[in-house]
Amino acid sequence: MDRSAKTEVAIHETLTRRWSPYGFDAERDVAGADVRALLEAARWTMSSYNEQPWRYVVGSRSRSADVWEKVLGCLVEANQTWARNAPVLMLGLVEHEFARNGKTNKAATHDLGAASASLTVEATARGLSVHQMIGIEPDRAREVFGVSGSLEPLTGLAIGYAADPATVDSELAKRDARERVRKDLSEIVIAGSV
Amino acid sequence: MDRSAKTEVAIHETLTRRWSPYGFDAERDVAGADVRALLEAARWTMSSYNEQPWRYVVGSRSRSADVWEKVLGCLVEANQTWARNAPVLMLGLVEHEFARNGKTNKAATHDLGAASASLTVEATARGLSVHQMIGIEPDRAREVFGVSGSLEPLTGLAIGYAADPATVDSELAKRDARERVRKDLSEIVIAGSV
Repeated sequence: MDRSAKTEVAIHETLTRRWSPYGFDAERDVAGADVRALLEAARWTMSSYNEQPWRYVVGSRSRSADVWEKVLGCLVEANQTWARNAPVLMLGLVEHEFARNGKTNKAATHDLGAASASLTVEATARGLSVHQMIGIEPDRAREVFGVSGSLEPLTGLAIGYAADPATVDSELAKRDARERVRKDLSEIVIAGSV
Repeated sequence: MDRSAKTEVAIHETLTRRWSPYGFDAERDVAGADVRALLEAARWTMSSYNEQPWRYVVGSRSRSADVWEKVLGCLVEANQTWARNAPVLMLGLVEHEFARNGKTNKAATHDLGAASASLTVEATARGLSVHQMIGIEPDRAREVFGVSGSLEPLTGLAIGYAADPATVDSELAKRDARERVRKDLSEIVIAGSV
């Protein structure tokens, strides 16, 4: 199944090949060295004032099963049904205050998005897939992981190898087979031109 | 000058080579085909409900000089001093409302960050550099580009070829020569492990 983006002009293959599957191969674990590299990619992302406002909770089903289980429990139910097949589950959190002066970092949420995108590039380069979710239960995450104050649990990340579609539950397989579409360039460039 | 990230484990070269210069080569233009590919990379980024809440204003000094000039005028003064050497200047904007129901998109700012990170990967792959800024004048941008309502001007992007350090103003060259540092992995992983 080729899920590569049908781009109008050629772009780097880690961006073309990236997609967010619902079907993960539950039998195929992700090596710890790969997870480490994904976090290294996040770590070296650019950020406003080099504040690095991204934080992650990292659960591996085989190596930190308790955390994996807790992260799964922080996803909304509709996401738990498919994300439970991903051998690695993370939460992405935003630190909204600058460490040096306690002021609000206007770029913080933006910069978590950038870090998780870098993580996803590294995952794609390694043959892994990432499916991010905004559908988490932030209050449960705060309680379960003792998070408070200016640190906000924002996203969930399911990480693993995409499953052979033939093995995927038909409802999820249908979602994974949907045509991949994007807005026209003219809809996202609101002024100016290339 | 090798500004590559000193990563603790190997990651994809587009992530290792990426850095945000203050010194841009003002003499070397960026081809329109390259700018088009950068926007295509942004376009195919993942987003919550595939809402694609990112918008861009795109100014090329050689091809849309009026827009380039206006974007430059929307940066805070401290950023104008160095960003004026970048032949392409963009603004990144966030659409905070879902098109289909007008509700707030909690992931919108995060997803602009992801799109601009994809754009930056494509730029790095093409030998270009991107330096993003949160230091813009949002109200000026709203006025100049007729932006209102739920659309928020958030970032500036300076895009071009990094300058030969020998040709860069000494104050900026000093900034560009600073050691590149990141938090320890233990500071960004707040629970769990790889």
